Amino acid sequence: MENKILEFASEQRLDDRVIEREFTLGEIPGTLWTPESATPAPLVLMAHNNGLPKRDSRLVARARITAAHGYAVATIDAEGCGDRPRSTADEQIRAELRRAMQAGAPRDEVDEIFESLVGPLVEKAAPEWLTTLDALLSLPEIGGPGESVGSVGYSGWMALGIRLAAVEPRIAAVGFFAGGYVPRAQREEARQVTIPLLMLLQWDDEGNPRRRALDLFDAFGSKEKTLHANLGGHTGTPAFELEDGNRFFGRHLSRHLT
Amino acid sequence: MENKILEFASEQRLDDRVIEREFTLGEIPGTLWTPESATPAPLVLMAHNNGLPKRDSRLVARARITAAHGYAVATIDAEGCGDRPRSTADEQIRAELRRAMQAGAPRDEVDEIFESLVGPLVEKAAPEWLTTLDALLSLPEIGGPGESVGSVGYSGWMALGIRLAAVEPRIAAVGFFAGGYVPRAQREEARQVTIPLLMLLQWDDEGNPRRRALDLFDAFGSKEKTLHANLGGHTGTPAFELEDGNRFFGRHLSRHLT
Repeated sequence: MENKILEFASEQRLDDRVIEREFTLGEIPGTLWTPESATPAPLVLMAHNNGLPKRDSRLVARARITAAHGYAVATIDAEGCGDRPRSTADEQIRAELRRAMQAGAPRDEVDEIFESLVGPLVEKAAPEWLTTLDALLSLPEIGGPGESVGSVGYSGWMALGIRLAAVEPRIAAVGFFAGGYVPRAQREEARQVTIPLLMLLQWDDEGNPRRRALDLFDAFGSKEKTLHANLGGHTGTPAFELEDGNRFFGRHLSRHLT
Repeated sequence: MENKILEFASEQRLDDRVIEREFTLGEIPGTLWTPESATPAPLVLMAHNNGLPKRDSRLVARARITAAHGYAVATIDAEGCGDRPRSTADEQIRAELRRAMQAGAPRDEVDEIFESLVGPLVEKAAPEWLTTLDALLSLPEIGGPGESVGSVGYSGWMALGIRLAAVEPRIAAVGFFAGGYVPRAQREEARQVTIPLLMLLQWDDEGNPRRRALDLFDAFGSKEKTLHANLGGHTGTPAFELEDGNRFFGRHLSRHLT
């Protein structure tokens, strides 16, 4: 991969002593939230499910609160994700998916379409996230106690997070939200994930059958893994789970944050 | 039930500004932990699984930490539980249970023995816990923001907690540890439990099949219910779950505690 240059495009100072900056890294658009602090903050990579852009209000709210707790938080729209242009092939698969779901197609059939959509998305997104990670860790305001190895957290999109946690030793802890389809490759890679893990599940998530989430929880290789489940549908996660997530990172990324 | 008099037998001041007092209420022996505080503390009833005494070191450790977080914590050895004398019939059932488990008897058969042991234990224990609750709430150091209705938490033995939460409106939040056998009556009563609920589960708890715990989680009538599961066996619960439990009570019993 060619060397890309990190360029900041805009900066906004938020109420809670958080600085929000838009950046580009070559063709990758990203947002970085950092706490106003004299000491470098541990980094949390926060990725959304593939269909949603990095400007999505729920992601932005999560990121701001996490930054206010003392973390640097970064997100990008990776290739084919969020606001990035989609290939014609991608658009066709998404149309096919909509048709199949509206027609109430059998789960197996819908799964195959998901596989052909999400599988390649993870393959394309992962290298961009790793490039972004390299660039961000060179910033003086990012680092935290662990410095290079084992200082980074990941939060969000499960399929991508499994891949990143499986290949990137600087990621020390992962928080997954059980949403969306996890491709076959990542279901296999789950066994290779051995770092501390918090999996957050909505008990009545229509698009994410409970049984599959519990099977994935079983599959992870981590010795320290915790499952949190709450009543309700996909978007019903209670606010206290965000605090719990921050405390989880606090236990694993640094000892002086709460 | 006749009026019983609450009598304190001993008092010990602990390191973390917690006062530990042994008491009796008629024939019921109990322990009360209270924080050194000018304002009344919300009460948490902490009950052990039926086989273990109130002096068990894990219960005592949990109680002390919870009291250090600003709660009054009480436990008793109810009739037939802990150090209280057991009836000959009880001893016979326990012996029968040991034999069946050592012989690797089928689950159905073991369940029937559990039912005949734990069912009556809950029936006998519940009134004693309610009598204790009445007596403790009359103490000036116990109360908290909610005062009379909805100011009490319950933590621990699930079968007893289901009964208490189903019949006692002063209990405002329950934290269950999925351990041991839940009798048929309490599996039915679970639907009547509608207060906020935190269920803590060890994923590989030999004595407590996961599927049953998840079915019970489903059965509770509460709109706000959260499941926490961690890898490992019955006694492997990570320390941070105690903090999570205290924060859960902090959300529901009072707003000024953390």
